[in-house]
This record gives sequence, C-alpha cells and structure tokens, in this order.
Amino acid sequence: MASNSFGQIFRITTWGESHGKAIGVVIDGCPAGLPLHADGINAELAKRAPGKSGVTSPRKEPDQAEILSGTFEGVTTGAPIMIMIPNRDADSTKYEPIKHLMRPGHANFTYLEKYGLFDYRGGGRSSARETACRVAAGAVAKQLCAYHHVHIHAGLVQVAHVQAKRTAEPSQEMVAVIEKARDEGDSVGGVIEFIIEGLPVGVGDPMYEKLEANLAKAMLSLPATKGFEIGEGFTASTMTGAEHNDPFGYDEGKIAPTSNYAGGTLGGISTGQPVLGRVAFKPPSSIQHPQQTVDQEGDAKVFQLPKGSRHDPCVAIRAVPIVEAMAALVVADALLMNRSARLS
Amino acid sequence: MASNSFGQIFRITTWGESHGKAIGVVIDGCPAGLPLHADGINAELAKRAPGKSGVTSPRKEPDQAEILSGTFEGVTTGAPIMIMIPNRDADSTKYEPIKHLMRPGHANFTYLEKYGLFDYRGGGRSSARETACRVAAGAVAKQLCAYHHVHIHAGLVQVAHVQAKRTAEPSQEMVAVIEKARDEGDSVGGVIEFIIEGLPVGVGDPMYEKLEANLAKAMLSLPATKGFEIGEGFTASTMTGAEHNDPFGYDEGKIAPTSNYAGGTLGGISTGQPVLGRVAFKPPSSIQHPQQTVDQEGDAKVFQLPKGSRHDPCVAIRAVPIVEAMAALVVADALLMNRSARLS
Amino acid sequence: MASNSFGQIFRITTWGESHGKAIGVVIDGCPAGLPLHADGINAELAKRAPGKSGVTSPRKEPDQAEILSGTFEGVTTGAPIMIMIPNRDADSTKYEPIKHLMRPGHANFTYLEKYGLFDYRGGGRSSARETACRVAAGAVAKQLCAYHHVHIHAGLVQVAHVQAKRTAEPSQEMVAVIEKARDEGDSVGGVIEFIIEGLPVGVGDPMYEKLEANLAKAMLSLPATKGFEIGEGFTASTMTGAEHNDPFGYDEGKIAPTSNYAGGTLGGISTGQPVLGRVAFKPPSSIQHPQQTVDQEGDAKVFQLPKGSRHDPCVAIRAVPIVEAMAALVVADALLMNRSARLS
Amino acid sequence: MASNSFGQIFRITTWGESHGKAIGVVIDGCPAGLPLHADGINAELAKRAPGKSGVTSPRKEPDQAEILSGTFEGVTTGAPIMIMIPNRDADSTKYEPIKHLMRPGHANFTYLEKYGLFDYRGGGRSSARETACRVAAGAVAKQLCAYHHVHIHAGLVQVAHVQAKRTAEPSQEMVAVIEKARDEGDSVGGVIEFIIEGLPVGVGDPMYEKLEANLAKAMLSLPATKGFEIGEGFTASTMTGAEHNDPFGYDEGKIAPTSNYAGGTLGGISTGQPVLGRVAFKPPSSIQHPQQTVDQEGDAKVFQLPKGSRHDPCVAIRAVPIVEAMAALVVADALLMNRSARLS
Repeated sequence: MASNSFGQIFRITTWGESHGKAIGVVIDGCPAGLPLHADGINAELAKRAPGKSGVTSPRKEPDQAEILSGTFEGVTTGAPIMIMIPNRDADSTKYEPIKHLMRPGHANFTYLEKYGLFDYRGGGRSSARETACRVAAGAVAKQLCAYHHVHIHAGLVQVAHVQAKRTAEPSQEMVAVIEKARDEGDSVGGVIEFIIEGLPVGVGDPMYEKLEANLAKAMLSLPATKGFEIGEGFTASTMTGAEHNDPFGYDEGKIAPTSNYAGGTLGGISTGQPVLGRVAFKPPSSIQHPQQTVDQEGDAKVFQLPKGSRHDPCVAIRAVPIVEAMAALVVADALLMNRSARLS
Repeated sequence: MASNSFGQIFRITTWGESHGKAIGVVIDGCPAGLPLHADGINAELAKRAPGKSGVTSPRKEPDQAEILSGTFEGVTTGAPIMIMIPNRDADSTKYEPIKHLMRPGHANFTYLEKYGLFDYRGGGRSSARETACRVAAGAVAKQLCAYHHVHIHAGLVQVAHVQAKRTAEPSQEMVAVIEKARDEGDSVGGVIEFIIEGLPVGVGDPMYEKLEANLAKAMLSLPATKGFEIGEGFTASTMTGAEHNDPFGYDEGKIAPTSNYAGGTLGGISTGQPVLGRVAFKPPSSIQHPQQTVDQEGDAKVFQLPKGSRHDPCVAIRAVPIVEAMAALVVADALLMNRSARLS
Repeated sequence: MASNSFGQIFRITTWGESHGKAIGVVIDGCPAGLPLHADGINAELAKRAPGKSGVTSPRKEPDQAEILSGTFEGVTTGAPIMIMIPNRDADSTKYEPIKHLMRPGHANFTYLEKYGLFDYRGGGRSSARETACRVAAGAVAKQLCAYHHVHIHAGLVQVAHVQAKRTAEPSQEMVAVIEKARDEGDSVGGVIEFIIEGLPVGVGDPMYEKLEANLAKAMLSLPATKGFEIGEGFTASTMTGAEHNDPFGYDEGKIAPTSNYAGGTLGGISTGQPVLGRVAFKPPSSIQHPQQTVDQEGDAKVFQLPKGSRHDPCVAIRAVPIVEAMAALVVADALLMNRSARLS
Repeated sequence: MASNSFGQIFRITTWGESHGKAIGVVIDGCPAGLPLHADGINAELAKRAPGKSGVTSPRKEPDQAEILSGTFEGVTTGAPIMIMIPNRDADSTKYEPIKHLMRPGHANFTYLEKYGLFDYRGGGRSSARETACRVAAGAVAKQLCAYHHVHIHAGLVQVAHVQAKRTAEPSQEMVAVIEKARDEGDSVGGVIEFIIEGLPVGVGDPMYEKLEANLAKAMLSLPATKGFEIGEGFTASTMTGAEHNDPFGYDEGKIAPTSNYAGGTLGGISTGQPVLGRVAFKPPSSIQHPQQTVDQEGDAKVFQLPKGSRHDPCVAIRAVPIVEAMAALVVADALLMNRSARLS
C-alpha cells in the first residue's frame, strides 16, 4: 500500500531508515518553472537539525540535501524531484543489547507484530529521522506556496504546563522545564501552533478533502502527535453559536469574515482569513528511567536505554519546522487541486 | 478531484444534495461474502435520524435506505454496493429570501467563492444531510469489522461545559443545556468520545496511513468538527515520558501494554488495546439570532434564519452514530490493507 | 479496491448489475459551471441502445438517464454528479437453468472462482450493460472536451474480414456478414477506430500517465476487447525510422509535425495533431451453438443458450459510442491534469 | 500529478534523468519477508544493458543497482524499497548543438510545449534510460510472483517483417535486418510476446482494473510502444464466436478452459491458463539520416544526430526484459489486490 506517500497532485513519497546509508523523498507533481536550489532546502533542514542546543538531541547530522533529479538550470522541469539526505552519524551497535525488548511508548512492538521483523537500528523506519524528508519536501512546497503569496509559520505555544504566545524561540521558562526533564532522564510534551497567511478564499475541497481534514491527517501522521485543533478547536465545543459564528463584512473590495473563530475555513474551504491550528505532542518515549517490559518471548525484563543514547527531552521543540512543512504540503496540494474547481 | 471518496481498499463515494431527489453512497472494495440487508443499514440510520426528541431538528426523514447493487441473495458479491436514501421532507422555498446572503459560520460563502455558484436549497452539498450516507456506508463497515471481532462505540462526553462519562444517552444536565440554548435561539458545541474494541495488534500502516492520521482525517471531514484527540490527546502534552509510556507485559499468551495512555496505537499501528479518541464539535452555525453579514454584492445586511427553519441546537448529540461510522470506515479499510503487510 | 473507478481528477465510479433495479455512475471532479441536462446524456445513450436494427440485440431498454445530483439550474456545481439509469426489461428466469454451468468465453467462471458467488441474472456485474454508465459519463466528458474545442469520433473499420473506412454507418457488406453470423447462431468480431480532434499540444502526462497508456487501459477495460493501437500501431513495427518519424514544420504561428504516423502523441503527450487509434473486439461469447463445458462440480455438460436469449451477433457495432465515451473520459481527465503542469 | 507512479498496492515511483547523477525507483507496498539482494536486481539489469552486441547501443552503463532502504538482513521489512542506479557514462556536450531543434519522432517537442522547458541532456526524463528503474522494480515484482509460483517470460517474435517463435535469442535473420538498418543509419520496429505462467484462476479485478487493461497500460507506458494485444488480439476481430470461445473441462480436480484463445483472462480475471500478449514497438526515432525540422522559433532546419551518438537500431531487442518487468509489476499488484476479494 502506498503508505509512504502524501498528497494528491503535489505528492511526496519518502524512503529510508534511521541508520541506512541515506533517506530521501520523491516529489511528484510539482509544476514546472519553480526555482529550486539545495540551499533553500538545507536552510529548512538546518532549522530541524539536532545538536543545536542543550535541549535537543546531541546527534550530529549536517543534513546536506542533494537534489538528484527534477531540476534543470535551477528550475523545476515537471519531472519528479528526488532529494536525498545521507545518514552520517549512525552507530547501530548500542541498539544490539535491547533489540529483543519491547520499548515502552515506542513502535518496535507494533512493527514487529505487523511485519514479523524490525530493523531496530536507530528505530529504522519508525525513527523521527524520516521527518527530515518531510522538511525537505516541505521546503519545495513552501516555495510553491510563496509563489502564490501564501506563507506558513509555526511556533511552540506550550511545554508541559508552561504556555506562551507563538514565537520564533521557546521562552526561558520552557527551556527550564525541558532542561529539568533532561536532567532527570525524563521527557516532556508540548503544543505547536501554526498559521497559514495569504491563502485566498476558495482553497480546499469540500467533503473528504477538507483543508482541516488534510491538515489533521498531516499532523497526526507525525511521530508523537496526539491531537489536532483548527480555530478554537476543543474550546469551540464550550461556546455557543452566537459567540462562535464569524459575521461577514466587506473591505477593500472583498467579502470576508470580520472575526476568525472558525480558524480560516468554512466547510473545508479557506475563507481568506489566516488558517490557524494547533498540534499536541506527547513526551518522547525515550527516557533514561528503567521501565518494565518483556522480551520477544514474553519474559519480564527491565528496559534501560543504552548509556550515551541521544534523544530529545522534548520533541515539540524540534518539530516546529516539521509542522510548517506538513502544513505547506497540504496547502501546495490544495492550491493545485483548486485549479480544476471551475470550468475556466 | 475525487474529493467525495474516502478509503483506499474499502472505498466510499457519496453523492447528493440536501434537497435533491436522493442522496447515496457507492462502496467499492467490500469483500464478497458479507451478509448485508437494508434492515441493518436502516437501524443505523435510525440512530442518526432527526426529530426524535426536543433537542434535535424536527425535520422528518424516515431515511429508508435501499441497496441498489452489489448484493445477491443477501450477500455481498464483490461488486460496488450502491445505497440510496430518498429525500422526502424537503421544502426549498424558505431558503429563497436568504439565498444572496452570506450565512455566518456556514459554507455558502466559501462554496460560492470557490465554484462561482451554489445550490442553496437546504445547504445543498454542504448540508450535514450527507452524513446519512456515511452512516449507511459505516453500517456495512461495522459489519465487516464485526466479522473480524472489532466493535465500535461512541458517546457524548461533553456539551458546552457539562462533562460526562461516555454513555449511550446524554445526561439530564446535558439535555438541559441544549434545551436552554434552543429556547434562546442559540446553539452549543460538544465532544464525542469513541472506542474501538477487539482490534488485533498490527493493524494500521506506518507513516502517512497511520491509524490515528486516518481517524483524524475522517473526523475532521465531518461538518462542524474542530478538533481530534487520540489517547490522552492534548493532555499528553502536559505529561512526562515516565507518566505517559505504557509498560509491556505478557498475559494469556500475548505481549501487550499494561496500561493505555497511548490510546491503542504506537507508530500508527494498533497495539491490541482499545483505540480511544475524542472529537470536538463547534456549536451549529444555524441560530435564530439576527447576525451581521453582507450579500453577494458586499452590501451590509442582517442575516435572519427563516421562521420555521429546522436546525439542531447541538449537532454533537446527533453525531454519535456518525463518529462511529467514520471510525468503522477507517478500521474496515485498515483491516483489508493489513492483508498485504506480510508475504504470507 | 476501487476497481470500479476510472480517472484521476475527472473520476467516474460505476455501479449496478444487468438485472438489478438500476445502474448508474458517479462523476467526481467535474469542474463547476458546465451546462448539463439529461437530454444530452440520453442522446448519447440512444446511440448505444440495442434493438435498433436487425444486427443488434432486440433487448428493449429506453435507457432514460436521470441526473440525481451535482447540477443546479442546469449547470454543474462542482459536487459529484450521479446519473442513474433504470433497468426496465429484465427477465432473469431464463438464466436459471444454466446458472451452474460455466459459459464458454464468458466471465461467470472467473467471477465464481474469484468471489465464491455470482449474480448470474443477465450476467450481473459482468454484463456489457455497465457500458451504458460509461456512455452517460462520457457524455459529460464530451461536453467538457467540447468546451476545450476537442471533439471525439469513432467508427467501425472492420467486421470479421471486411474492412472499411471509418464512417458513421457500417457498410452493407459489414451488415451482411453480421446477419449471416446471426442467422447461423454465431457471432463475429470487429475493429473500431477513434479520432480525437482539436486537442492542443501538451496534453497528457509523461511516464505512467501517457495519453496512449490511459487510452489503452480505457479500451482494454471494455468487455470483449483484445487489442489496442495508437497511430500506425502494429504496422509501425514493420516500418523504418526514416519512414515513421514525422518531420516538424511551422504553420499559422505554430510548430507542428507535418505528418502523423505517430498518431498524435510523442512521449505520451499530445502533438496537436489528431489522436488516432483502433480497438479490436472479439466475437461475442453468446452464440446459439451447443458448446462443451462443465458444471460447478466439474461434470461435463453441453452449454446451450436459452431460447429467446437476446444477444448481439457483433458487439463492435454497438461499441462505437462506448469507444468514444472512453476516449472522452481519458481526454477530459488529461485536460484537467494539465492545469497543474506549469507554475502559471 | 503522480504520473511517475504505477500500481495500487505494489506501487512504484521512478525518478531521474538520463544524464543526471543517478536514476532510481521507490517501491512501496512490497510485503515484508521477501528475500531481496542487489545481485538479483543486477542480474535483471544486465539483461537490459546496452553495449552487449553489435545491434544495441554501445553506451556503457554497468548499471549497478544499490538498495538504499527497505531491507534488513537480506529481507524486505515492509518499508519502502529505494533502488538507485548511478549514471556513469553521460556526456551531455554533444547535445548542445541540437538543443533548440525539434527532434522528429522524439518527445522534446511535446515536453517543451507542455512544461516550457526541457532537460535536453541525453533526452532527460523522456529517455528510455528510465526503463532501467522499471527493470529493477520488476526484479522485485518477479521475486514476489515467483513466491506465488508465477513466472513471466518474454521474447522477440518480430523484427520489421521478419517473424519468429518467441525464443530467448533473436534469430540470425532478425539480427541481419537490424544490422542492415544500423549500417544504413536507419532503425526498425519489432514485436515482443510475453507469457505469464502459473497464475491461479481469479486474479485481476473486473471493470477498470482488468488484468488486460493494466497490462495494456503498462506496455503503452513504455517508450516507443504503439500497440498491445491479449490472446488472439486483432486476429480475434476476424474470428467467429464458435471459433474463439474456449470450452471448459475438468482436469486434476480443477475446472479450466481446454483451449486458450482468450489469452488467459475472462472479464479481466485470470482463468488459470497462461496469460499471453504482444507489444508493438515502433522503429527508434534516433536515426543518422538528416531530417526536416524547425527550431524553437519555427525556422526550418535540418536535424542531424551528432556524430558518435549512441542509439539502438531496434529498441525491441533490448525491451524484452522491460516487457517482462512491466508484466511482473501488474501481476504482483493484482496478486496483492486479490487478497481482499473475499471475506476470508
């Protein structure tokens, strides 16, 4: 099943394991004529890169993407774009001792049960390393969005119980909470907010390809995500219609809602207002605490991460560019789909 | 674009407008050999039917589904199953006076902008009437699930600020809140919880077809939904890894998590534990209050629902069987997809 | 599996059995704004209708299509278009005596083996009656093509060994051959040629969605088809490059091939020249001769069609509008897909 | 649009240009547990390799495939399989002088018109080099087929007017015809026959996913193909039903047709008999003759291939493993699709 693809017209397919030679993504359906250079992709990848601060995994991956196809003289040709990212800092030996153990909160149990075998090295296909491919593809989608004057930004608005306005950088209080978790060998969850600005009215399809439905799928396809909201989200469930309905007005020659409780869509289609949503991340499953588990035979064991394992105490902090990438992929696809909505 | 289809192997396509002659759904990919009668479908439709109590729309629709293809002697044949539901109680005249007005919180604005025209009668394609088709298809999916010993239930767990345990019937307090909103010409939101029981470990695909990703898309494709959670959902973002990770144990010959904070999936694949999630519904946009809006020319107007319009003061109360249907569609598809996960 | 759907953006899904209450088709992805009336569809259906002459099946089916959704005030709305065609002249009783026999040249054997059961009444889902739905959908596709100044025509160019130029009506010699086969209780094959005119250069995608690849699939998805050619087809295999290559010239401000051995495509993309192809039909399997077969238990039997069975002695003669419909479906889809080929 | 993908469950996506750094293919949906090594893939690639004899292009491409993902300890894991083939022998300089000319019989004209730009180096994406990826993916599909006891073979049965029985090697007379064309700077067409043996009855879906429809699409998606036949093909159009219908018999506990005019399918579903078809290839467009053409401005020019260009005088001779690969991809997908045909 094409479980590793996302999108209908602007469609990506990712491949690769955490400790293989490389990971990568094929983008099919990108229109011809879009300027594209590896530099732009690498700039996005750098935002996601680990090892940048004390609160992210110390794994060193320069993440230099290479565009192997689909461009000619710096411009997309309409052919599939293959972007490859070599894996450089992969040492699989420390996973050997725990390869027969079920890791609490981790997917090795379900992969093993589903497929009958599992590439345990660095988490294999289930590793969050795959999200680098999403960011690379998202960089292309962002460029297509920018051509249509659509811009996407995300920011951390919550870490554990600490809330904040969406900003480019986590607050000191957030960092403190993450550092505390790290020092205790534990991890914490968080919430990321995203905003899509400049999207014209009429983008997104009704019914099963609603903009918010595809955003929800995009975000819940990310590792460690547990919730999604558009607009007021769960808070909307506590409001009345009189409070929640956005009136319509007329400004600068355009009809538009005068408030934005809806979060930028009605019936799955953009209203012209900013599209606003939030994504909940669980605390990463990789913690230094000993945990109860069993091995493949079902015998009780204690699971203990190998000394020197590199893990993020808060995945949300690194997921900001990934959330942006997924939103960009959804919007790029919706913009292209919209080209066949009307006869002319 | 195939925006009216959902699912990969077990794939539905719905059609029809609120005030057309009929609505319906084609189910493609249902395996041959499943017993299927209109009775079972109509029983599910009855759960969704309006006019059953003071807190739902008084529209009378017997909703008698007819199976027009795909079965032979009471059993599915592998051919596409077409289920049609006639529209009987449709009076479009009262929508005439408001047809040029943008309806606050409603999709007529975005449809008009997207397509350049809109079948305004009863909300046309954007009406929640389409969800009857989802329930009909969901009834077939439920039967396929039941064959695999998987059972799905949903219940209202919140109306406005009133919370409750998931039960078959809304609490008295909930009903009171809804009645109050109705009497004030207003509406309220709510939250529905669903549970999928009996799902074996290993169902659901990793990456972009994760079980929770498809559930999220399914739920956010419903009218009036604003949020989705799996497991602890947004609460997970406030927890630590030590709190959230489910240990593994061994019982009755099976490895399984001994708690279920994850909500029944790891890496997008079922763990064998119940799959638990919640869906947030906004307050319905159709309220009796006068609301500020504009007409198609942008001139300021007051929007007032026609006298005698029939609307639900709380859509969540009627959405319980719809949430079950969407969950069943996702699970039925995942069960079939899983048949090609392994060589044998 | 979505085996009953065809097309990517302009996508049809057909349903219904030969002797059920009705058959039909859902068209998803038709742009909003296309004028559409049942009359135009019925005019196409009339071309396909049996019972018009001595050389087609005497089955009487008025084939009055009804548009049940997707239009408003005579224009498509962007919502799915459901076209239903009632089955009126269906008498299943005469199939009873042969229901346990494998019919030579017929699909009841393979359906039975695949699905474990078969709706034998009139051939069920395997009946060529399904092609009425293709013609109905093709009528919509033709209208979309016509809006883009693309026109599609087909004609019978061969019956048994009798060849002819593509014309609207079969030649006297062709009719004589068919009548002879009919009188002998036998059947004959034939070849249909189609031509797509007015297609601008650049339509069709490279690689796996080549125009000729989709035309080939479209035609081979028709019952009784055994071959497909584009341009010179199999004759091209006997030519040299110097003979076959079409030179380029410049006329009326456009670059274009000055001959058309290629048949209107290069690399799967239209050249601006007419697209020309041919489809081979086998002789219909339903003949009056007694034939050797077995029953479901494997016991040797003689298969004899029931007296009064209505069958076409030459399916190709009725397939002309069906070939046109399939070509129109391919082209309509390719025209819409082409809208996202370039950045602007 | 996902124009570079093929298949539904067993789904490939190819990428890369003739003179880029590499080409490759991602296979998604291959079941876990299939033994897979680069050696097996390279053995298939060797069959397709140019430079092996006087009648194929002298381009030297060792074509060493590398499996970059999707296997672990020599076995597929269920994760996407990325196979990369470096381009080693690519000299783009000689294409410089002809980059503004339309090449007769070649796709540079249609690509330019469609996309507005073209990677002319070695034919870019339109080069037959892409077929190496199909052969690589086909090698995996063949292995999956072999696990199901299905085996696929193809052979050259016609070159220009010279016919032969399908054999592993082209006849002396065929070689002579090709050598003559090469010496005259010309090219010739040909026909390849394929046979699928061991396919059980019931594989392939009815309606739009018929086995022969997907085989037709697969073959017509190959460069230079102009026709497809299943069974008797165009000859069937000259036969009568009494001649063409295959009777049924019972042997070794199985019902089966006792002849095979149908070519192994009925109603798009396999009969258990060998599936037999033929593919027509045009003469390659690259010939040494001077040809009339125009440049991008429409000015008349003479097109002359650069001295020392490497081209095949008969593409059919090298296409034998490619036809096998495409057939294998269709069958592998159909085998997996068939797993959800029945309830159990």
